[in-house]
Amino acid sequence: MIYFDNAATSFPKPNIVYDSILKAMKEYGANPGRSGHKLALKLGREIFKTRELISKLFNIDNPMNIVFTFNCTESLNIGIKGILKKGDHVITTSMEHNSVLRPLMDLKKEGVEVTIVKGDSKGRINPEDIEKSIKKNTKLIITTHVSNLTGTIMPIERIGKIAKENGVYYLVDAAQSAGIYDIDVKKMNIDILAFPGHKSLLGPQGTGGLYIREDLDVKELKQGGTGSISHLLEQPEVRPDKYESGTPNGPGIVGLGAGIKYILQEGVENIRKYEEELTKHFIEEALKIDGVKVYGPLNINEQGAVVPINIGYEDSSEVSFILDEYYNICVRPGLHCAPLAHKTIGTFEQGVVRFSFGFYNTHDEIEKGIKAIREISKEI
Amino acid sequence: MIYFDNAATSFPKPNIVYDSILKAMKEYGANPGRSGHKLALKLGREIFKTRELISKLFNIDNPMNIVFTFNCTESLNIGIKGILKKGDHVITTSMEHNSVLRPLMDLKKEGVEVTIVKGDSKGRINPEDIEKSIKKNTKLIITTHVSNLTGTIMPIERIGKIAKENGVYYLVDAAQSAGIYDIDVKKMNIDILAFPGHKSLLGPQGTGGLYIREDLDVKELKQGGTGSISHLLEQPEVRPDKYESGTPNGPGIVGLGAGIKYILQEGVENIRKYEEELTKHFIEEALKIDGVKVYGPLNINEQGAVVPINIGYEDSSEVSFILDEYYNICVRPGLHCAPLAHKTIGTFEQGVVRFSFGFYNTHDEIEKGIKAIREISKEI
Repeated sequence: MIYFDNAATSFPKPNIVYDSILKAMKEYGANPGRSGHKLALKLGREIFKTRELISKLFNIDNPMNIVFTFNCTESLNIGIKGILKKGDHVITTSMEHNSVLRPLMDLKKEGVEVTIVKGDSKGRINPEDIEKSIKKNTKLIITTHVSNLTGTIMPIERIGKIAKENGVYYLVDAAQSAGIYDIDVKKMNIDILAFPGHKSLLGPQGTGGLYIREDLDVKELKQGGTGSISHLLEQPEVRPDKYESGTPNGPGIVGLGAGIKYILQEGVENIRKYEEELTKHFIEEALKIDGVKVYGPLNINEQGAVVPINIGYEDSSEVSFILDEYYNICVRPGLHCAPLAHKTIGTFEQGVVRFSFGFYNTHDEIEKGIKAIREISKEI
Repeated sequence: MIYFDNAATSFPKPNIVYDSILKAMKEYGANPGRSGHKLALKLGREIFKTRELISKLFNIDNPMNIVFTFNCTESLNIGIKGILKKGDHVITTSMEHNSVLRPLMDLKKEGVEVTIVKGDSKGRINPEDIEKSIKKNTKLIITTHVSNLTGTIMPIERIGKIAKENGVYYLVDAAQSAGIYDIDVKKMNIDILAFPGHKSLLGPQGTGGLYIREDLDVKELKQGGTGSISHLLEQPEVRPDKYESGTPNGPGIVGLGAGIKYILQEGVENIRKYEEELTKHFIEEALKIDGVKVYGPLNINEQGAVVPINIGYEDSSEVSFILDEYYNICVRPGLHCAPLAHKTIGTFEQGVVRFSFGFYNTHDEIEKGIKAIREISKEI
């Protein structure tokens, strides 16, 4: 079986991730409170270690400004809904995932003004278009870092600069980049960073995270028990508790920590380079096949390890079904929860067959994928 | 090590829970979409099996009315915020956890009227007090099933009847009961049921659930990718997708399914009986110790496997520390995220030392716990 669906969830994980989750569940699977017995304290300490690892990865000064969430979608919902109020203006792009667009459509009904800057046919966003859209009531700019459809790498440092210069907050959706591409919240002027745990950070499902800049006022989405300031009926303001109501996914966060430790050991740059080589290999070979359309910038300096293709006018689901059924190759067809991105690159009707690579893929697998595409393209 | 903190998180879990989570992560740890490749479909099917098991457990007709969440706190936030709007009136009790009270305090600021019915010194709620509080604009009644402080079992069937007769919705917080006490959403007129996965259902942390009655209009808390109706920028109305944005905790839900299967095999009644025996044993022996106060109904027909005590006027944290440090016994001191419940039973200043038992505890452990309490009570 060849797994080319890493943009959805990375698979497999390093063995240390499985082992550390199992160890946490079996040996100290208690409820991490702020006070408590040995098992609870042990899990609490391990969770804090993961906070520290994330801080290191994204150049965040204070680990308490990192919030653990259920997934990147929850992180985005907190960041978006916690900031925007009726009368505010927000700028985003046509390359966003529904996890950005759907919360915005919900807020639009409540009087938030939304501007969607359009990308070009390769999924690229012009930062000047964002700057030109800034108005007096613009409060927030939201962009993805790497498109989940075309792999297009967005100029987040430039956009961050524009945001800062204009006194606007900047939220980055790092769903496809956290763990592979350099993210420095200070250098890039990122006020809010949303990321999943289960993609390139190599953690398990049920983990996600959110960084919120120290002095930024973001309302929490949920209230509940935080194990802190329990005498108060009001949600505590202290971080990260304010945003972490209820029992966290303790063993999951431990596994996420193991994934990040693995990444830091291997080296973010080494992982990226390897994925770039795989991506380059795939793009070059796919472009040679007659009747195959390959989307995105088609240049690894501008494209992450996500490559969408189509074979002639064949429905993307049909092609994916054949890849799965006859070649044991896992890819993802359809619209990838990014309808505007598909409209942007002109694939809204047909969908695309998305190949997304990870650190555990090999050049041999790329060859097999290419061979399969070649054969299918001849059949169709 | 003796673990008496099962009301926070049950520990350990049945081996089949660990094994099934590991198997899911290692063998089919893909992203469960509505369409997709073999691995994704396999995980999707396993998740559906867990939905079916929960349906069976709570007598729910349609598994699609069960939503998987991050934890019970999230379930409660969805149920509470999804129903109540400015001008609505809600009735709850002083025995609730902060996961109910804090969202209500948040809504109060936005114009929701809140009535808190007071319990008696044993944590009991009189359903007549709830009925008397119903007004023209009452939309929702919320009660816990079993108090997380006193273990008091609430008369949810009677309250459900009152709710139905008065055309008011009923939300039950089953944080301490799901998996041990019979819950029949139809017989008990429960419109919304919130439950954690990691307590008596024996699943892992990072899992929770919510049942919402078929025709009940509850707004979702988060929007995002659902893998369904992806061409739409609006959140789909179809269940459970409407409430399950973003990647679910796939392996966690598989583990939850294994936990529930284990419960159904052992028999809910057998598990309850065993926990009742442990609780009875503990209460009887604790009551014999001079200077020890034991709280709650002190009767296993009215009290779940949660027993709070105090030793003289000693601070509950100090006693818990001694139990942990010198006896290797894990309990939970303090306010248990339930400040009003503590005020209700008169322990707001001192806190209590909470003992909570699970299926894996033994009578021998109860004896050791009692021996420790006896020794500490002599020292103090």
